[in-house]
Amino acid sequence: MSEMEDYLDAHFEEALEDLKAFCRIPSVSTDTAYIDGIAAAADFVADRLRRAGFSAVELLKTGGHPAVYGELIGDPSLPTFLVYGHYDVQPPDPLDKWQTPPFEPTVRDGRLYARGVSDDKGPLLISILVAEAFMKTDGRLPVNLKVLIEGEEESGSPHFEATLETFRDKLDCDLVISADGAMWRPDRPSMTVASRGLVAMDVSVTGAAKDLHSGRHGGSAPNPIRALATLLASLHGDDGRVAVDGYLDDTAPPDPSIIAAIEAAEFDAGAYYRDIGVSAPLPVTDGRELLIRQWLEPTLEFNGIAGGYQGEGTKTVIPSSASAKITCRLIAGQKPEHILSVVGRHLQARLPAGFTLDIHRHGPGSEAFFVDPDLPALEVAEGVLEELLGQKPLRVAMGATIPIGAAFRKHLGREAIFFSFSTSDEDYHAPNEFFRLANFRIGLTAWTMLLTRLGRAGA
Amino acid sequence: MSEMEDYLDAHFEEALEDLKAFCRIPSVSTDTAYIDGIAAAADFVADRLRRAGFSAVELLKTGGHPAVYGELIGDPSLPTFLVYGHYDVQPPDPLDKWQTPPFEPTVRDGRLYARGVSDDKGPLLISILVAEAFMKTDGRLPVNLKVLIEGEEESGSPHFEATLETFRDKLDCDLVISADGAMWRPDRPSMTVASRGLVAMDVSVTGAAKDLHSGRHGGSAPNPIRALATLLASLHGDDGRVAVDGYLDDTAPPDPSIIAAIEAAEFDAGAYYRDIGVSAPLPVTDGRELLIRQWLEPTLEFNGIAGGYQGEGTKTVIPSSASAKITCRLIAGQKPEHILSVVGRHLQARLPAGFTLDIHRHGPGSEAFFVDPDLPALEVAEGVLEELLGQKPLRVAMGATIPIGAAFRKHLGREAIFFSFSTSDEDYHAPNEFFRLANFRIGLTAWTMLLTRLGRAGA
Repeated sequence: MSEMEDYLDAHFEEALEDLKAFCRIPSVSTDTAYIDGIAAAADFVADRLRRAGFSAVELLKTGGHPAVYGELIGDPSLPTFLVYGHYDVQPPDPLDKWQTPPFEPTVRDGRLYARGVSDDKGPLLISILVAEAFMKTDGRLPVNLKVLIEGEEESGSPHFEATLETFRDKLDCDLVISADGAMWRPDRPSMTVASRGLVAMDVSVTGAAKDLHSGRHGGSAPNPIRALATLLASLHGDDGRVAVDGYLDDTAPPDPSIIAAIEAAEFDAGAYYRDIGVSAPLPVTDGRELLIRQWLEPTLEFNGIAGGYQGEGTKTVIPSSASAKITCRLIAGQKPEHILSVVGRHLQARLPAGFTLDIHRHGPGSEAFFVDPDLPALEVAEGVLEELLGQKPLRVAMGATIPIGAAFRKHLGREAIFFSFSTSDEDYHAPNEFFRLANFRIGLTAWTMLLTRLGRAGA
Repeated sequence: MSEMEDYLDAHFEEALEDLKAFCRIPSVSTDTAYIDGIAAAADFVADRLRRAGFSAVELLKTGGHPAVYGELIGDPSLPTFLVYGHYDVQPPDPLDKWQTPPFEPTVRDGRLYARGVSDDKGPLLISILVAEAFMKTDGRLPVNLKVLIEGEEESGSPHFEATLETFRDKLDCDLVISADGAMWRPDRPSMTVASRGLVAMDVSVTGAAKDLHSGRHGGSAPNPIRALATLLASLHGDDGRVAVDGYLDDTAPPDPSIIAAIEAAEFDAGAYYRDIGVSAPLPVTDGRELLIRQWLEPTLEFNGIAGGYQGEGTKTVIPSSASAKITCRLIAGQKPEHILSVVGRHLQARLPAGFTLDIHRHGPGSEAFFVDPDLPALEVAEGVLEELLGQKPLRVAMGATIPIGAAFRKHLGREAIFFSFSTSDEDYHAPNEFFRLANFRIGLTAWTMLLTRLGRAGA
């Protein structure tokens, strides 16, 4: 360790220059105007892997932007870990809100400001730099590493599952370590061990075959906005929880270590609502309950609603149809197919006379992701964080969906842990994204410790 | 009467040519491309009034398209009636659905096809032709007549109330006779004696100050679409009737003659729903109840709803706000102000925690219109119809709002009756609008009888 620490210390300025060079590449995946940036970033990663000592480096064809692959297999008897990250970044807009240009990395107050520096160029570069340091000092890694750095994460990873399936032999490993993800809060180390799944649908209700005059027909013709409102209003109880029979089928009580983390977090519900700008009486006043709702309970959220006239003033119309967009976040045990079915049955049973109901599903959805709480690698990672940061990390869940965790399990049959050194306050989908240089340093040390210990402990 | 009938018979072809000439003028009020047509139609009416013997003919400035005024005051001791009509027409679109061009009047199968022929050029021309016939045969009218023909009815008569107020002395009369309006059904004479009032509002609900990620915040942040759906769903009972405390304050039981008309109508609910294209189980199966709901009960209809994402696919957002457009149709006794107040109180009382509510009213609204059932002129008009058509006319109500009835009462302090010879099946807001030539003839006779008898009976 000491030799590694000396090496990383001595080369920190070089590492920072590497990161700046990476961040100068405008690799926005959602906008075809940046297609050259995508290609340059993929090449940067491939080149950096080769310089670090990786072999079999190549750009994997995905059907979209390429994924970069490399491997460093020293001793087949050692466990093999697959490092995941992404070289693409969010769009930089709005440009005028940046204090320094998004693709001109700038250090201020111990932070490096640039688009993508925290999500995910800094964190993923750490894993490559640590592998390089092992090679330069020990001439070998304590584990075998494979690296898969995709270029479409900010576009929803549309080709990711197919890529895993196509290259499943090449990507075979004992465990996935994601360099993407973020610590929940800057003041407390945490490990993300669960995220909710997702199923999305449109619900539409049709009354008459055409729009009708609401004066002449009002009171007799079926009004689909009324029917839709009635249906939507029936989906939750007064406490805001989903009130659909069968919604919780096959779910299990949550991991007690996450409940413990929630209790340790002493979350302030009032501060949360102030932060998002709710000035009315609070829906949930207890911070513990609020976090349980965000992390450990399923939701059914209305993302959009539309029907009839939406312009200025009035139009006396009874529209033919009205519709709503719904996404359900799922907890462990909930299957997208089953959720769609019980929601459909609930709505159909409550459909008033005079209407037809149509439910359109978007995509296959994804089940909740959760790390096996007894996974040895999880404890190893937690031990590293506790030793380095002086506090036992919280096991936290995410309300949002991390599709990659479930994807690795589904296509490679492997667990994933999240070991990232960005934190959730680093504005990674907003202007002035930054990465704390202190965390860059800590991350280098932490990955060194993690790989060393995993080499001893196995996956 | 016989001399009048002979005259009208002898001049029917001329009358038809007059009507065709009127219908050749494309007087669409909602589209500035037709501004020349509006001017030409106003001039046509003014000229036709002068030729018929009217004096003091002028175009009244309204702030929008002019209204045409004329008067024929023979004997100040006779009652004075104000004839109302409008020279503007609906847009002709979609043009490709017309069998013959909308502004090339064409007779087919005893019907004259042209935009505006039924609404309202034919019916209003009848009143002028009858006045002319009186002057040519008797040299005098049996009553005094004033005529007010506006040019913005199809645009919602935005300047009409102000025009009545400005010219209230000039327009002073004993009773208004509207040549606009339509018989309810072609197979049965009817008099429209009531129409529902109107109040319009937007209801919007706000949760957080900004749009939020529905994964991260789902389950804890207030979702305004859910709150709005809950509020809207609370406004009606399971039977579709308005369920707001105080909504029926100050209403009286309906005019028994309208109930009698509903019973006589033997309305077919199944045919109604088939016609508007409802294929699902019927909301109301009883025709009597259906007409009562359309004519005699107040409504609260949702005309539009909007919130969050409405594009293709999904967006995982909890929007900051959501809103709905509402119009309430009012029955006699309901005041727009009071309705707005009780609806607001109802919604505010049911607003879930975490939301703020905003209600924006559109315009002053209008109270229900109803003809005094004991008005002598109403019985005179009914007698004329019964004698000519062989059936006692039904007293019918309209679900829609006729603002002019309430406007004449408010600004001139006078009642209005509707004496029109168009029928509601004449496609007057659709392609291939037509006017039955048989009704054109009957209308000429009927107005002759009406004015003659009103001259004897008074208003």
